[in-house]
Amino acid sequence: MNNEQENMVTCLDKGFVRLVDSMGGDDAIVQAARVSYGQGTSKVSQDRGLIRYLMRHRHTTPFEMVEFKFHCKMPIFVARQWVRHRTANINEYSLRYSEARDEFYIPDSENIQFQSALNKQGRSGTVPENLKKKVLDYFNDASERSFKMYQELNEAGIARELARSILPVNIYTEWYWKNDLHNLLHFIGLRSDSHAQYEIRVYSDAMAKFVKKVAPHAWEAYEDYIINGMRFSGPEQELLEKKLPDRIIDDILMDIVYQLIATLNKNKSRDKGRLYEIYKREGGIDSIDDFKLKWSSGRIKTGNVRELREFKNKLTSLRN
Amino acid sequence: MNNEQENMVTCLDKGFVRLVDSMGGDDAIVQAARVSYGQGTSKVSQDRGLIRYLMRHRHTTPFEMVEFKFHCKMPIFVARQWVRHRTANINEYSLRYSEARDEFYIPDSENIQFQSALNKQGRSGTVPENLKKKVLDYFNDASERSFKMYQELNEAGIARELARSILPVNIYTEWYWKNDLHNLLHFIGLRSDSHAQYEIRVYSDAMAKFVKKVAPHAWEAYEDYIINGMRFSGPEQELLEKKLPDRIIDDILMDIVYQLIATLNKNKSRDKGRLYEIYKREGGIDSIDDFKLKWSSGRIKTGNVRELREFKNKLTSLRN
Amino acid sequence: MNNEQENMVTCLDKGFVRLVDSMGGDDAIVQAARVSYGQGTSKVSQDRGLIRYLMRHRHTTPFEMVEFKFHCKMPIFVARQWVRHRTANINEYSLRYSEARDEFYIPDSENIQFQSALNKQGRSGTVPENLKKKVLDYFNDASERSFKMYQELNEAGIARELARSILPVNIYTEWYWKNDLHNLLHFIGLRSDSHAQYEIRVYSDAMAKFVKKVAPHAWEAYEDYIINGMRFSGPEQELLEKKLPDRIIDDILMDIVYQLIATLNKNKSRDKGRLYEIYKREGGIDSIDDFKLKWSSGRIKTGNVRELREFKNKLTSLRN
Amino acid sequence: MNNEQENMVTCLDKGFVRLVDSMGGDDAIVQAARVSYGQGTSKVSQDRGLIRYLMRHRHTTPFEMVEFKFHCKMPIFVARQWVRHRTANINEYSLRYSEARDEFYIPDSENIQFQSALNKQGRSGTVPENLKKKVLDYFNDASERSFKMYQELNEAGIARELARSILPVNIYTEWYWKNDLHNLLHFIGLRSDSHAQYEIRVYSDAMAKFVKKVAPHAWEAYEDYIINGMRFSGPEQELLEKKLPDRIIDDILMDIVYQLIATLNKNKSRDKGRLYEIYKREGGIDSIDDFKLKWSSGRIKTGNVRELREFKNKLTSLRN
Repeated sequence: MNNEQENMVTCLDKGFVRLVDSMGGDDAIVQAARVSYGQGTSKVSQDRGLIRYLMRHRHTTPFEMVEFKFHCKMPIFVARQWVRHRTANINEYSLRYSEARDEFYIPDSENIQFQSALNKQGRSGTVPENLKKKVLDYFNDASERSFKMYQELNEAGIARELARSILPVNIYTEWYWKNDLHNLLHFIGLRSDSHAQYEIRVYSDAMAKFVKKVAPHAWEAYEDYIINGMRFSGPEQELLEKKLPDRIIDDILMDIVYQLIATLNKNKSRDKGRLYEIYKREGGIDSIDDFKLKWSSGRIKTGNVRELREFKNKLTSLRN
Repeated sequence: MNNEQENMVTCLDKGFVRLVDSMGGDDAIVQAARVSYGQGTSKVSQDRGLIRYLMRHRHTTPFEMVEFKFHCKMPIFVARQWVRHRTANINEYSLRYSEARDEFYIPDSENIQFQSALNKQGRSGTVPENLKKKVLDYFNDASERSFKMYQELNEAGIARELARSILPVNIYTEWYWKNDLHNLLHFIGLRSDSHAQYEIRVYSDAMAKFVKKVAPHAWEAYEDYIINGMRFSGPEQELLEKKLPDRIIDDILMDIVYQLIATLNKNKSRDKGRLYEIYKREGGIDSIDDFKLKWSSGRIKTGNVRELREFKNKLTSLRN
Repeated sequence: MNNEQENMVTCLDKGFVRLVDSMGGDDAIVQAARVSYGQGTSKVSQDRGLIRYLMRHRHTTPFEMVEFKFHCKMPIFVARQWVRHRTANINEYSLRYSEARDEFYIPDSENIQFQSALNKQGRSGTVPENLKKKVLDYFNDASERSFKMYQELNEAGIARELARSILPVNIYTEWYWKNDLHNLLHFIGLRSDSHAQYEIRVYSDAMAKFVKKVAPHAWEAYEDYIINGMRFSGPEQELLEKKLPDRIIDDILMDIVYQLIATLNKNKSRDKGRLYEIYKREGGIDSIDDFKLKWSSGRIKTGNVRELREFKNKLTSLRN
Repeated sequence: MNNEQENMVTCLDKGFVRLVDSMGGDDAIVQAARVSYGQGTSKVSQDRGLIRYLMRHRHTTPFEMVEFKFHCKMPIFVARQWVRHRTANINEYSLRYSEARDEFYIPDSENIQFQSALNKQGRSGTVPENLKKKVLDYFNDASERSFKMYQELNEAGIARELARSILPVNIYTEWYWKNDLHNLLHFIGLRSDSHAQYEIRVYSDAMAKFVKKVAPHAWEAYEDYIINGMRFSGPEQELLEKKLPDRIIDDILMDIVYQLIATLNKNKSRDKGRLYEIYKREGGIDSIDDFKLKWSSGRIKTGNVRELREFKNKLTSLRN
């Protein structure tokens, strides 16, 4: 497998996303953050923690220090959604200068669906074969006829900028597209979402693969905190508070305290007496005997001290 | 004529630009500039001079303090060029949510031209009637057929976001478009230029009319300094310097000095002896008798002191 | 109380935020959104619902259609944080053109605090009176001495752009600052947050007051969904799922179904039999008798149908 | 000389500009432009011509495809001007998190000047030694005293975000600053200009050196067309037209025609008869004998065909 192919993901029937160049990765994020927060240690394990911290607290500027440049080919209707992300730099193939090429997007049979009743902008349901066939016939017919007319006008010498007006929005265009990681992640968050149109999601997912390769820690943090994050509004929290018995919240809190102690102990080993002291200070309520029992059970998950503390705070604020 | 019409300019065969709202005008530019440069006098005549000064010296931030919001309707291929101006805020009619409407751009006969040989992206020349007829037939055919197919798929319940893919880029769309005056002028500078495509020029010119109405001094300054400005590159100046005899430059310089004196005198009247002193200080070389003679001829144009001085400096730098 | 004062909020000891102008409000958001989603009904009650929907789903472009222009006066160290919000247009008082004025920020006694141990960038704790006095003395001393030296250099004719270099960052500056509502809310979200420095929070809170006045529905939605929203990351949700007994979630879900029915009934009255049908369809599990009993208790809160449905979906996804 | 030093330029007494990373150069500009204008030949000589064409015609998007990342250290008052360029990504050393360092800008004796009378924002003239000494004393005094007070408050545990308020704007800060070439050139155009403050010009010039190294053709074109370009406004052109005798313009035009022919001949050799034909077609008026004579003189400069033609058009438009 050559290098060209490694950096290329095919998209839809005739399109692609190709990583042309990139500047920096996880290390550049950490490097920039360390200018802001002063120097400091920099073991790789700490890099990951710092990146997660930055993501969780929306300290977005260090992510802007990484840059990606892609060469993409996609139908015009996809380009029209894409171009709305205004921080990117773009150079697009111009149909004023150059001739259009005979390349049109024809959907796969499985992606032909009905207008969704629930999601006013999406699609759903299974379309019968004969209707699918009609859709494909119409796509092919509209594409071929308009291109034939375009070609004829072009050969007669009509201005290209005018002749191209009759071409449908499923014709392929291409561009160079350059953006920083923060804004690229924002793009992916919106365009890889299940509410985004399938045809742009394919491109967004392709770029996500390259992000994962170039800046794996940043990608993991983005997935954990943004993509898989769940937000409860003020009014929703009120309802949660009213119905969530404090004892349930307390159960979860106690679990978190154990995870916290286990994590501290993993980072720097201590004897059980000292651990119990910390346990109490963190709000633990078990007796020393219960503590030792649970501790010896050896099944406590470890995590990240800072992340666990923040979770504790969030939960505590939900108690009545 | 009602208010709605006053704020609306029709564009192409079915489009328009409508001024929805604006914030500030020439006064807001001056107000903002005066924060930067400290307070100061503010006769209306001085406002104009200040605005011209800001424009000439590319002090662009005060022009950003004026905001325009337009409602526009235009073919998709025009929208595609338009959207590349990234500082604007946009809300566009969505063909994912809403049905397409049967409105397509069909060019006027006079705007059907050949591909330009000189300007690789433009059009020129006269197209014979029968070829014009073919172009119009193709535009009508492509528009009608694709819309009929779209309608059929839509009625069969196919997802709108998919069915719209076969619609050509001459279909009309609409949007709200909001931008500040500095960036709006930049848009107009590029899109009302003779190299811009005719179909977007129409919209740019329509917005220019509203700019002229809302901020007349800013518009006048933009016309004088940017649209009608002519720039000579370094290498071109070298050639100019080599061939322009100093005596020609000196002739022009002397004219400028007279205009300068006349302008100073208009602002604050002085006797001829005092005027001659200033004339000499500004570099005038005529004898007192010649000076009086020319002065009495009474045909000296007046201008703006600062502008004339800057012109003197530019010309002087072209002398050998 | 005159108009000038109504539009002005004093900040810190010598600063202020003054609303100079604004363009549009809640109506402009709705107007722009309706271009995107096609026309539709527009009772005021529906405007609020639409604005909440847009906010909840991060459809941010309609909020960009509202514009605010402020005149602000603040210490330079506050301006330095403020200016990092890059979408705004700014015209600032220039110390190259104009003389500095003898106005420096001296903190209130209560805002003098220790470096926070927990929050590495904040402050906390109570400072003893004698140390507070020293802080105030140093602020006064640094301000007065540097201004006296500045003045002396200025009177001696030294270039202002150079002389100002010795002035401390607590000197007041002022500017015109213009931004759209979406980006203004983002500013407020970050700068009215408890982690933001107190001195900029004061200004952010002042602008929030004006937002609330100009676009009250947008502000309410921002408060409910963003400021008071609580986000659980993917890993946190895992822990929640593991410990939250399904029966607790089911209790909450059942409450939501009742609220949903009550809301539907409020919008359009139905008889109890019909309501019970809907109740069952929405997943209610009470018997018809229990249903009637609870219903007659008359204590069910109503809300917004769409918001309640979305909350149901979120909670359901937390069940094991 | 090691690599670190090659990529570092010291600025003022304690600052620097260091090129941390860059993405692309002249080749990336050409690559992006060729996506827009269709493929085509790409000899290096043609790359230069294309880059000059793009610059001359303000086709700015290909220049956005090149990215620079700098690490810079500069006084706060310089950073305050710098940060106004809003397209850049920035991560700055934070005085909320980290302690201030004892590094202040003290001007060189030669850069201490008087307030300029002509240029209201600049400096000029020679300051007597005793006044220079006072300036230096005041700079040192203000810096040292304020730092001593800051340190004392810091050691007493006062919040850093508050204590730093008394530090003067000549204290050094540092940041990572990332921008694309188009916007970087715009920065340099404004900040290396003679009207910019000396202290920021030093940094702008340092970055210009790196631009010249990374993208030499782009830099050369920027110098020729923008930095050394001279623009005449509409009103100025009117005056020029009125006084410039057509015969002078014609002299220059004739020179350009000869340069054009010489350039065409250099690109592809032709016999003299053929050259004379082209000469006439381009508007030459010399007889064949005069033509041969001048031609044989062998002193005709060559240039770029397109550039010479555009110059011809500009000059022709100045004829009466």
